Amino acid sequence: IISRKPYHRSPNWTSYQLSYLVSDSHHCLIMGLKPNSALKASKTLFVLPSLFTFLLVGSQGENTAMDNVATERRAEESHRQDSANLLIFIMLLTLTILTIWLFKHRRFRFLHETGLAMIYGLLVGVILRFGVHVPRNMNNVTMNCSVNASPATLLVNVSGRFYEYTLKGEVSTVKGHDVQDDEMLRKVTFDPEVFFNILLPPIIFHAGYSLKRRHFFRNLGSILAYAFMGTVISSFVIGLVMYGCVTLMKAVGQLGGDFFFTDCLFFGAIVSATDPVTVLAIFNELKVDVDLYALMFGESVLNDAVAIVLSSSIGAYQPAGDNSHTFDATAMIKSFGVFLGVFSGSLALGVATGVMTALISFCFTKLRDFPLLETALFFLMSWSTFLLAEACEMTGVVAVLFCGMTQAHYTFNNLSPDSQDRTKQLFELLNFLAENFIFSYMGLTLFSFQSHVFNPLFIIGAFIAVFLGRAANIYPLSFLLNLGRKNKIGSNFQHVMMFAGLRGAMTFALSIRDTATYARQMMFSTTLLIVFFTVWVCGGDCGCTAMVLQKSHAHFYVFEQVTVSDGTQHRNTKHESAWPFRIWYNFDNTYLKPLLTHSGPPLTATLPACCGPLARCLTSTQAYENEGHQHNDDSDELVLNDGNATMYGDVTVSTDASGTLTTNHKHLSASTMGITSEEALDQELAFGEHELVIRGTRLVLPMDDPPEPTVTLKIGCVMWWSLPMPASFSSAHSCICIF
Amino acid sequence: IISRKPYHRSPNWTSYQLSYLVSDSHHCLIMGLKPNSALKASKTLFVLPSLFTFLLVGSQGENTAMDNVATERRAEESHRQDSANLLIFIMLLTLTILTIWLFKHRRFRFLHETGLAMIYGLLVGVILRFGVHVPRNMNNVTMNCSVNASPATLLVNVSGRFYEYTLKGEVSTVKGHDVQDDEMLRKVTFDPEVFFNILLPPIIFHAGYSLKRRHFFRNLGSILAYAFMGTVISSFVIGLVMYGCVTLMKAVGQLGGDFFFTDCLFFGAIVSATDPVTVLAIFNELKVDVDLYALMFGESVLNDAVAIVLSSSIGAYQPAGDNSHTFDATAMIKSFGVFLGVFSGSLALGVATGVMTALISFCFTKLRDFPLLETALFFLMSWSTFLLAEACEMTGVVAVLFCGMTQAHYTFNNLSPDSQDRTKQLFELLNFLAENFIFSYMGLTLFSFQSHVFNPLFIIGAFIAVFLGRAANIYPLSFLLNLGRKNKIGSNFQHVMMFAGLRGAMTFALSIRDTATYARQMMFSTTLLIVFFTVWVCGGDCGCTAMVLQKSHAHFYVFEQVTVSDGTQHRNTKHESAWPFRIWYNFDNTYLKPLLTHSGPPLTATLPACCGPLARCLTSTQAYENEGHQHNDDSDELVLNDGNATMYGDVTVSTDASGTLTTNHKHLSASTMGITSEEALDQELAFGEHELVIRGTRLVLPMDDPPEPTVTLKIGCVMWWSLPMPASFSSAHSCICIF
Repeated sequence: IISRKPYHRSPNWTSYQLSYLVSDSHHCLIMGLKPNSALKASKTLFVLPSLFTFLLVGSQGENTAMDNVATERRAEESHRQDSANLLIFIMLLTLTILTIWLFKHRRFRFLHETGLAMIYGLLVGVILRFGVHVPRNMNNVTMNCSVNASPATLLVNVSGRFYEYTLKGEVSTVKGHDVQDDEMLRKVTFDPEVFFNILLPPIIFHAGYSLKRRHFFRNLGSILAYAFMGTVISSFVIGLVMYGCVTLMKAVGQLGGDFFFTDCLFFGAIVSATDPVTVLAIFNELKVDVDLYALMFGESVLNDAVAIVLSSSIGAYQPAGDNSHTFDATAMIKSFGVFLGVFSGSLALGVATGVMTALISFCFTKLRDFPLLETALFFLMSWSTFLLAEACEMTGVVAVLFCGMTQAHYTFNNLSPDSQDRTKQLFELLNFLAENFIFSYMGLTLFSFQSHVFNPLFIIGAFIAVFLGRAANIYPLSFLLNLGRKNKIGSNFQHVMMFAGLRGAMTFALSIRDTATYARQMMFSTTLLIVFFTVWVCGGDCGCTAMVLQKSHAHFYVFEQVTVSDGTQHRNTKHESAWPFRIWYNFDNTYLKPLLTHSGPPLTATLPACCGPLARCLTSTQAYENEGHQHNDDSDELVLNDGNATMYGDVTVSTDASGTLTTNHKHLSASTMGITSEEALDQELAFGEHELVIRGTRLVLPMDDPPEPTVTLKIGCVMWWSLPMPASFSSAHSCICIF
Repeated sequence: IISRKPYHRSPNWTSYQLSYLVSDSHHCLIMGLKPNSALKASKTLFVLPSLFTFLLVGSQGENTAMDNVATERRAEESHRQDSANLLIFIMLLTLTILTIWLFKHRRFRFLHETGLAMIYGLLVGVILRFGVHVPRNMNNVTMNCSVNASPATLLVNVSGRFYEYTLKGEVSTVKGHDVQDDEMLRKVTFDPEVFFNILLPPIIFHAGYSLKRRHFFRNLGSILAYAFMGTVISSFVIGLVMYGCVTLMKAVGQLGGDFFFTDCLFFGAIVSATDPVTVLAIFNELKVDVDLYALMFGESVLNDAVAIVLSSSIGAYQPAGDNSHTFDATAMIKSFGVFLGVFSGSLALGVATGVMTALISFCFTKLRDFPLLETALFFLMSWSTFLLAEACEMTGVVAVLFCGMTQAHYTFNNLSPDSQDRTKQLFELLNFLAENFIFSYMGLTLFSFQSHVFNPLFIIGAFIAVFLGRAANIYPLSFLLNLGRKNKIGSNFQHVMMFAGLRGAMTFALSIRDTATYARQMMFSTTLLIVFFTVWVCGGDCGCTAMVLQKSHAHFYVFEQVTVSDGTQHRNTKHESAWPFRIWYNFDNTYLKPLLTHSGPPLTATLPACCGPLARCLTSTQAYENEGHQHNDDSDELVLNDGNATMYGDVTVSTDASGTLTTNHKHLSASTMGITSEEALDQELAFGEHELVIRGTRLVLPMDDPPEPTVTLKIGCVMWWSLPMPASFSSAHSCICIF
């Protein structure tokens, strides 16, 4: 992004002025080499066809050094410009951070921080587009080598030496305004692959790393249904509606280029990805049931993974056909195969590297003494997942998601407490920066992108399609799921899911990835508007979701949930969850966890007697030590959940380092109260996490919430968690001493 | 680095096969566009001069979609390849980390970790060079557009649409072996600007951020003398010796290209930069006096800054002259002006952004409640320093160094404890990763770089020159400095400084930055060997430094230093330091610190009465609160030093979160012992830091160090620090209770 300086400086940059114009019936081949002339001059040359000029202006030798210097200057100037461009973004981010802080400080929640970043981006975009005019200098327009193709790579032969050039992008010279300004805008609009390779992975990894909670696994069936079936339904519905819209446009004569059925489906796929970030922010406000919260969060995270693979498999369908609208069964099956293959491959790869990291940190136990090495290893392994997947032609983003989940479930338990904090904070920071960067870039791109195609009909059609697609995802699936669920998804909550389906970073990244054709350009412009609308209107505190729930707000309050959980919820932990979850939970707890982490019972206890020797050599000494106080491991997990909940709850709440100590104290208090450890464990399963999540969500509440103490006094062990958040270590400590 | 996918896909990638060959007496202009043909075919075309072929193979229309797909495939393939290449480095780093851990765990210190990274890099380089052969595929060789220049940017005109291409680098086709392998190696050898823009800044910032200690300021004069005068002397001596060597080579007929006097000076400048990292590692082993330690560290950090500006100002001298060997006074003065301007400009810029960050974190005090925002802000402001400097045509690396120092001195005190930890850990991690990456890349580049020029005479000359240059830097300057210093620089220590002048990341980055000419290529190859030699031979535990000091080892032991400090050193704190330091210290303490941080006395107390209203409005409420227990601020600083010392001492030692608490306890213990707070403060100044550094260095010692207890019993308040390192919070706590 930053550097454009050439590796090798040009050895002989002579001031020859060569111009070749060869004209054909179709193709015009022009090669102009003008180091010191302006583009306008070259334009006038292009205007003259069938002309063959060969101008020898200078001569070699003396000029070599001078030209070397000139090239160097040019490269430096380009580098300077790049630094300035990047600086704009850094300044934007700094400004956003300061405003976010102001919003948080003043408890002003009219607008979500991502919406804010977008507004700043818009402002800077307007300034860059209309305010700044770069003085004309010919730093980059050094040579015109015009042929009738633009391959990705160009080899240039300079008297026997070959130089490689890579395609940067298109420069629009057709439009009326200044070329230099275009140049500047194009530089600000940088390579969209940056989003996929640098900015998306930390966001998705962080989502996966925060997903580790039993609620996710308990609702896995529903989440998968929403994420897989729902996204497929949604994208097909959107695709069909858009196809109708495009047909109408063609009939009216509004369509300026090709727009095939597969393009419609592609649009459906990219627009079906809902954003977990904005979803989280809203759900914090609404204080929703944690199970449903997990449902919503899980859906929006997996959504992204499904949408990205779906869009690529639609791409696989597209080229085989001739883009006629006939249904091609074999291509369809092939697409489906690609979808399944890429998704499962990426999943397996992500899980594999996660497990490998767990094994490394499990085997090299002494690594715990060096948190820096541990953190670095963790970071590198997670990143290598992405690269490995990309190198294997899988989807890196999906692999990173599942890697994050595996890391949180296994590796996290093997890390030293210091590394646990470090990794959490590191990914939190990366996520925060990447997210705000993407959103402020979104705002900027509305003005800096130069090939926008805004078609009113298409835009209206898209908004309707998105609405219908989301409805076709949520309502029928919720109805079907409710048939099997004990903890029903209420109609109010269905409305929330309907309106909280914001489109964010993933949709944007997928749509900007390819903006070559007319269809893609129109898609990109429309997607941008959809993202703006959903983030600003649905994402704010006064959004439609809040309005929908205004009457039935109380239903979602936390304390009600807690009182319910006191009686029935407790039993639900074991009985409500479906058998796949229970089988998985047992398998994970008895075999995988002891094998991969230091928590859980030792393998010697869980494996059948015949596997004794194997179990003995696979069990670490630490696991034996754990055997006595087995339930501590679950409390360990609780600490993680705590950390994650606070990370979810509000990005700014710090994970307290004293967590481990305090949780242990809690255990003591539970056991001194005469509850057996099994009971305590069960209670923890049922409430601990609930309470933790509640704490995470309650943090943004004003302090005038009277029913809280009455609830928390019900169970002793819960009480501690209900302390006001800024409880320092010492006060927590003294509180425990009361028991 | 990662992505090479084009922004816009080529709209019309037809399969025309066009070949133009126009031959001139000097220049051969060839344009070949062969999407499906091999490079060999194109080579044969190049062989035929004065030939004009125009082949129309395909026709437009139907093929568009197919070609679109082909382009996409090609881009994907390229992306896949890039991911694989980056994966190699990630794997290398992972391997290095695991081995570093093994070394640390087994207390095996034969080789420094950076040396290890280089060895792994070498191995992978050998494998890539000789082991892997990429099957020939024509993914990237899509078009040959041959002209007689290689500008940084190329504009390609495709039937009226302009596409921009950027120079990637040279492809060697002259050599015998396979082009595809070359292609692969060239891809692994990525853009050298990456080092300057991505990898060096965190390393240098970290060095600056760790520099905050009174010892640095106390030895500022000596450090500046070594860093500025020493580097200039060294680079001129090396330049002169090399010029002699080059003249000899020319006489013998060993020189294969131009090598001017300015090239010699440039070589001197880049080779004069010593590496702080390896210096630190060695000094940990040698348990050297902290003052001398600060001297050495400060020199090697500032060294880098001086070398980078010096090399660029030699570059400014070069083009003006005609590279004849006559002395050009005006150009010399101009160069000197550039040096001063760039250095002071970068310094001012770095300090300015540092102060700005301090002011922001000072004004927005409530930002402390949100550590994530605080950390993000800190990170962004530090990064923006680099970009700002680059955009202003200053040296970003130098700006970042001084920014880091300012941040550590002022901003750090305004951060919340959580953010203090976070920023430290973040930059520690970035530094660790960047450093190991550079060193493993160094190893790799010995085989992957394709234009090596190894000239035995030049290499031998360079080794001698480096030795002489370092000697001309250290010995005369030490002699002169000893005339003025109270705490003399012993001859043994001078030998250590002489041999510990390792060359590392900065030298490498400077030499790889430009490898276009024969002179630069020879410089690069030689520099690589110098780095290898110094890191492996001087950097190891059994290096020559250790041998030099074998007899007088005891002199450097810590306990001796402590016993000395008991009597005389104490007084030295105030009296030894020169008047510039004292003036600066007073000014900083009375005006700058209260103005920029929450520590120090309130401005109302330090400013004269006439400035009362101004002082009142500039002083924060927190400063008033501080007034009562002013010395706490210094203990605050101590905590920072503690953190830094452990960071220095051994990268793997974690900064303990309980630092603040324990230091306060220490204060209590000191006051309960009947020492007044002033005395305690003074003792802290004299010993606290000493002890801290000692603790940092002692960590790598085996535990059989008998004189330790006898020393530490001398002063009560020091005792706490002398506890064995893995002392947990509770044991430290209980220890305090004894007093």
